Amino acid sequence: MGPITGATMEVSSTFDNMTGLTHDRPVQTSSFCQQFSSVDGAGNYDVVNNVVIPTPGAPDPRAQNSLRQSWEMNYQEAAIYLQEGENNDKFFTHPRNAHALSAYLFAHNHLFYVMELLTAVLLMLLSLSEAPAVPFLRLDVYVHATLELLALVMVAFELCMKLRWLGFHTFIRHKRTMVKTCVLFIQFIEAIVVLVRQTSHLRVTRALRPIFLVDCRYCGAVRRNLRQIFQSLPPFIDILLLLLFFMVIFAILGFCLFSANSADPYFSTLENSIVSLFVLLTTANFPDVMMPAYSKNRWSCIFFIVYLSIELYFIMNLLLAVVFDTFNGVEKMKFKSLLLHKRSAIEHAFQLLVSRQRPDGVCLKQFDGLMRFYRPRMTPQDRFLTFKALNHSGATMLSLQDFYKFYEVIGLKWKARRSGEHWFDDLPRTAFLIFKGINLLVKSKAFQYAMYLVVAINGIWILVETNMLNVGVSWTRVVPWSYIIFLTIYGIEVLLKITGLGPLTYFSSGWNLFDFSVTVFAFLGLIALAFDMEPFYFIVVLRPLQLLRLFKIKQRYRNVLDTMFELFPRMASLGLTLIIFYYSFAIVGMEFFADVVYPNCCNTSTVAQSYRQINVTIGNRTMLEEGYYYLNNFNNILSSFVTLFELTVVNNWYITMEGVTSQTTHWSRLYFMTFYIVTMVVMTIIVAFILDAFVFRMNYSRKNREPLDDPEDEKGIVFETEVSQTEALQTLDLYKHTLGVTNLSSLQDMCVALERSGHSSLVFLGRRSRTKCDLSMKMYEEEIQEWYEEYSRTNLQPDETFHRELDSPEASATNSVN
Amino acid sequence: MGPITGATMEVSSTFDNMTGLTHDRPVQTSSFCQQFSSVDGAGNYDVVNNVVIPTPGAPDPRAQNSLRQSWEMNYQEAAIYLQEGENNDKFFTHPRNAHALSAYLFAHNHLFYVMELLTAVLLMLLSLSEAPAVPFLRLDVYVHATLELLALVMVAFELCMKLRWLGFHTFIRHKRTMVKTCVLFIQFIEAIVVLVRQTSHLRVTRALRPIFLVDCRYCGAVRRNLRQIFQSLPPFIDILLLLLFFMVIFAILGFCLFSANSADPYFSTLENSIVSLFVLLTTANFPDVMMPAYSKNRWSCIFFIVYLSIELYFIMNLLLAVVFDTFNGVEKMKFKSLLLHKRSAIEHAFQLLVSRQRPDGVCLKQFDGLMRFYRPRMTPQDRFLTFKALNHSGATMLSLQDFYKFYEVIGLKWKARRSGEHWFDDLPRTAFLIFKGINLLVKSKAFQYAMYLVVAINGIWILVETNMLNVGVSWTRVVPWSYIIFLTIYGIEVLLKITGLGPLTYFSSGWNLFDFSVTVFAFLGLIALAFDMEPFYFIVVLRPLQLLRLFKIKQRYRNVLDTMFELFPRMASLGLTLIIFYYSFAIVGMEFFADVVYPNCCNTSTVAQSYRQINVTIGNRTMLEEGYYYLNNFNNILSSFVTLFELTVVNNWYITMEGVTSQTTHWSRLYFMTFYIVTMVVMTIIVAFILDAFVFRMNYSRKNREPLDDPEDEKGIVFETEVSQTEALQTLDLYKHTLGVTNLSSLQDMCVALERSGHSSLVFLGRRSRTKCDLSMKMYEEEIQEWYEEYSRTNLQPDETFHRELDSPEASATNSVN
Repeated sequence: MGPITGATMEVSSTFDNMTGLTHDRPVQTSSFCQQFSSVDGAGNYDVVNNVVIPTPGAPDPRAQNSLRQSWEMNYQEAAIYLQEGENNDKFFTHPRNAHALSAYLFAHNHLFYVMELLTAVLLMLLSLSEAPAVPFLRLDVYVHATLELLALVMVAFELCMKLRWLGFHTFIRHKRTMVKTCVLFIQFIEAIVVLVRQTSHLRVTRALRPIFLVDCRYCGAVRRNLRQIFQSLPPFIDILLLLLFFMVIFAILGFCLFSANSADPYFSTLENSIVSLFVLLTTANFPDVMMPAYSKNRWSCIFFIVYLSIELYFIMNLLLAVVFDTFNGVEKMKFKSLLLHKRSAIEHAFQLLVSRQRPDGVCLKQFDGLMRFYRPRMTPQDRFLTFKALNHSGATMLSLQDFYKFYEVIGLKWKARRSGEHWFDDLPRTAFLIFKGINLLVKSKAFQYAMYLVVAINGIWILVETNMLNVGVSWTRVVPWSYIIFLTIYGIEVLLKITGLGPLTYFSSGWNLFDFSVTVFAFLGLIALAFDMEPFYFIVVLRPLQLLRLFKIKQRYRNVLDTMFELFPRMASLGLTLIIFYYSFAIVGMEFFADVVYPNCCNTSTVAQSYRQINVTIGNRTMLEEGYYYLNNFNNILSSFVTLFELTVVNNWYITMEGVTSQTTHWSRLYFMTFYIVTMVVMTIIVAFILDAFVFRMNYSRKNREPLDDPEDEKGIVFETEVSQTEALQTLDLYKHTLGVTNLSSLQDMCVALERSGHSSLVFLGRRSRTKCDLSMKMYEEEIQEWYEEYSRTNLQPDETFHRELDSPEASATNSVN
Repeated sequence: MGPITGATMEVSSTFDNMTGLTHDRPVQTSSFCQQFSSVDGAGNYDVVNNVVIPTPGAPDPRAQNSLRQSWEMNYQEAAIYLQEGENNDKFFTHPRNAHALSAYLFAHNHLFYVMELLTAVLLMLLSLSEAPAVPFLRLDVYVHATLELLALVMVAFELCMKLRWLGFHTFIRHKRTMVKTCVLFIQFIEAIVVLVRQTSHLRVTRALRPIFLVDCRYCGAVRRNLRQIFQSLPPFIDILLLLLFFMVIFAILGFCLFSANSADPYFSTLENSIVSLFVLLTTANFPDVMMPAYSKNRWSCIFFIVYLSIELYFIMNLLLAVVFDTFNGVEKMKFKSLLLHKRSAIEHAFQLLVSRQRPDGVCLKQFDGLMRFYRPRMTPQDRFLTFKALNHSGATMLSLQDFYKFYEVIGLKWKARRSGEHWFDDLPRTAFLIFKGINLLVKSKAFQYAMYLVVAINGIWILVETNMLNVGVSWTRVVPWSYIIFLTIYGIEVLLKITGLGPLTYFSSGWNLFDFSVTVFAFLGLIALAFDMEPFYFIVVLRPLQLLRLFKIKQRYRNVLDTMFELFPRMASLGLTLIIFYYSFAIVGMEFFADVVYPNCCNTSTVAQSYRQINVTIGNRTMLEEGYYYLNNFNNILSSFVTLFELTVVNNWYITMEGVTSQTTHWSRLYFMTFYIVTMVVMTIIVAFILDAFVFRMNYSRKNREPLDDPEDEKGIVFETEVSQTEALQTLDLYKHTLGVTNLSSLQDMCVALERSGHSSLVFLGRRSRTKCDLSMKMYEEEIQEWYEEYSRTNLQPDETFHRELDSPEASATNSVN
């Protein structure tokens, strides 16, 4: 456990050493196997760590059996440690005994996670069918209440499993879980009340439902976002206060200056004055708010110009600056703590894998055992190759230094390096020549530029054609001949590329995938048209997307689009975070404002115009003059989402606010203003995130003096491992006889491939795509070394850390190791 | 010239050495004094630089006189070099002979600069009185045309001076000057045409007038901003194209999807479709643009949500990221080149100041000679103290290393360190005790917090009072008694602080200055009220500004406000840059759209409502229902500015656009769209600037581990210099006899002060405020060393640089040094 510095490395290159002897005993016994601890006798920790006790002679079968079981337990616990490191789970939630282990295993598999997620999603989706329901999804009260109760019971069951695994003390101390329990309790009571009364009451607490989703294992990214948002809050609030302060001062000034003007409704009272300036902050009522005053005295525009300059152009930017700065710092700290947590997890796992005979390394046997728990789906061949990739020092065992690279290597996909270049190398001569010709063609610059030209012409053609169409013609029903021609060209291009490059190479590029799907969709659209399938006509409309290919030409666009794809997971999680906020606000909005606005509802308010729906007779024609704003309502959750999106975009949001306010009380404004401030926080953080990600990427490429479109870069991370024939056979042998693994087809394939190739060794390539973590590792290279040193210096020695952990109150209750 | 490494430093500490011998000859002769070069004979550069030729015996009076004149010329040229370094003037515009020098001196003084500025401002102000004039400033055509001609003649005269000084070749090669000349020529012809025809024609070229302002010496910051904007343009344009591309694709999609809906005017033609989406990009027509489609099919909102997510929330932020990144890089490069330019200027000046006898240092005599040209207003005492401050090595002469600090030291204000702490130390006992008491009182925490409390109560009071006032009461005429009480308290506080701290200490703090001015203004307002002086009533309205003092309490606000003050000069220059863009657009707008919109002008357009002005009879009351948008016009330059500000704020800008478009052609939209894109560039850069400045400040304080409000920090940069009595007397002597300076009162005062203090020496403190440059110096400390090394390595040796400069084509024509 931890860097064992004093021990000298045995450089015995026998294969036996690498695979590990069967009678090796683990240095440290897993906390799960209390029943076996007696077999090993005094598994005294301090002694074992320094002195290697040899076990002379072969042990008796019973002891050997229990020894094997003991090892299995160690493998499992090591795998759990590594998983905790990967998921950033704190170690104080680590299962401490066999009892907790079973609960832990039950609660930590994809089936359980999916169940957890589905329950949470079901709970959230229920609001589609509850009281102000989407018309075609309306359910009876007893149906949705029963569904809710069922889902809540599921959540309760999940919580029970968690309680069993964590133990009561840890459970109580885990804040998120406690909040979840309380919410669950309230929801439970309310659901029963609904079921009993057979009608929904004012259930604002439904706004808390997203908590169940946030707590899901798969929503870790959302949790991180929320944490980041909360961490950015204090400086944000400070500046917000400054903003509001200036607003109030200007509201008083504005009231003093303009309230004498009876034609000016915006500053007639102090409250109006404050609301007007709040809306002005979002620019939504500009220049209307200025106009009455401006028409009376031209110099009054100075008031508004000064206000906007200070508030909008200065303090709002300041807000962004402060959030950006905090965000930057938080990102780095997060990366540091994740990295150190992983390192610590690796150290824990390492200590469980080393044997008493060789306390300074992990052999293949142990590693294989670990991987069987950590990645059950991995083939023996891949396990072996991963071991080889980790084994940088060339010794037969993995030292701790090797093992530190665990997380970098674990995601690799292994493949033997292709002997030939093309997929058609093995075909007969004639076919080979044809395919080779196609290959050369599609790889030529001329072909590429010809295709760009076609796309450009297509673009111009579409523009001209669209422009020449008569208004009102249902464009989607007409298929111009040009469209079919262009589509044929694209189809031929796709076919040529697939045959020339081979399907594997072709589909490994994101751009090709994009080309392919757009072309296929266009063909599908054509077929849909031919068979007159109405609902699919929108596919035809996607044809201009072909033009996006033009952006491959310029370097900067490729970077931008690549970065966009890299950012996509993070963006999606930010979007999900935003939707969670939306959900809560939508529920509150529905509870208070459902069916409040309708056509001609707000004739007494200042925004009557936007809600008016009257028949106007002009000449001899009667037309419906519509103010459409009654559509922006909270009548069901879908409408609410659209309304909230409109509020997020901010323009004209005061019309919705004033409409609702005129039908309810003026306290309703609080809801809208709060929503504005909350979305401002989230949006500012999204902007800060995009800024940070791009500036980071650009700095990265500048620091490493490599162009971003370096082909090496595109490939992601690549590891090479060479396997000799003897090694392969010996490994096969080991797996067959020692480990008793049955499914060895992958390893046998490897041996066959080696034999057939005629070379004495074969090179395997492991690939994975580059993540933000890899970029960060390279960016902060120097700082990382400092962190590691600091970590091993200021923190206790790893052994001591472990001891302290064992002695800590939450662990001592359930723990009985040693 | 340059670090003279081989020569050994003479450590002779005689005072004579420090002041410089009269028969010392300059190593290098100024290029101005060709007539004297014969006296020194073979002033061969290469030889002199290595070998010091001693001059035995006293020279004859004629030679000595010409020698003195030769030195004077050297001082002047060195001063010019240092000035060029300070102003970032390139050395190829350096005057090369006596002829150019006189023109240079004529064109480089504040009188000339002011004239230049006034002429440019006059030219720009003329548009107030020209054709679509501001009503009360209208001038007859012959008056403003004559004024314009006069101003243009002034500009021509300035250009002639520049031509004389630069020489024809350099003049031609100087791009900015050439553009100015062309514009001048065109303006001249047009002005004459106007004068002849006695009427203004379509004069779009007036939009070029700001060029004269930009070229002014005092507008260097604006020039830098413009350069930075142009440097940020290429990446900006790339992303802009991406933005426009997506816009066109979505316009085609939108046209296909929604043109069938006859109730949807936004997508009826492809052109409308593009315009609608362009306006949607600014969110100004959201959600109206969505409503017709949304009311027909609820799922159509997806189109708009996707469009806004991609364009507004992703690509627009990308734009900011790219500009921010470029901006960052440009800022650093600018700092680097400025720094190296200054260093090079210092090296040039140094070489002109060293004498043949001592080629490795500058004595006080030479330094004093330099300063007489560089800062004519500086007192001999300050010159002496500056010399002492530079002289870090303690030797009697300034080495080049000392001299490198020139620009850091030159702005210092010198003052003897006060023997006592308070201003009232010299007063009689009783008065002293009273003042001491006041001093202790105003410095106490209790007093400060009591004042905060008063301000807070005042704030609440104002809010409550304003809220309770009846609508329509002319608030400004009523002076509530509470106001007089609070004002009295503030007045007493100001008086106490001034007497307790002394006026000098009091006014040295920006916050006190703010307090003072707000209080004084409030009193003035009260007096204005008492005497019923109408136009000043707005002063009373400023009373809530007192509340701003509350923000002193919290650290972060102090930082924010301090940074705000630090940023102010830069912000002002950015504002000026924006105004220059406004000016050009305003002129173009006035030429094409003057008097185009008026009440009820646009009844055929979609925005008729906003321009309608009709009498509506409701019941028995007739009311004027006003759409005020006819006020947003281009009828004169002031209205145009307000209209352009509204377009900058972006909300509802399409109403102005559509109004104008309906009265002219639809090409008018190009004007508005161009304006939007230009302001987007400028605004993005302003945001990037604020972001950069704040993040820089925060990084700075984090890097230096010092809180931003460190009292040391507030004082700015401080240098200390100790002067002994003998030194002072000797310096006085030197000045009196050797240099023949007559106005020695400051030095005499110093000697008297020294004598009176009774100490053998006196410490002088030089202070100046901290600039961004100082912060940058500290931030980039390590990189600066690298730059210097790179500069002296990759650049030629300084001597060679100079030679190369002399040999360069633009210099060789007029140059005849040595």
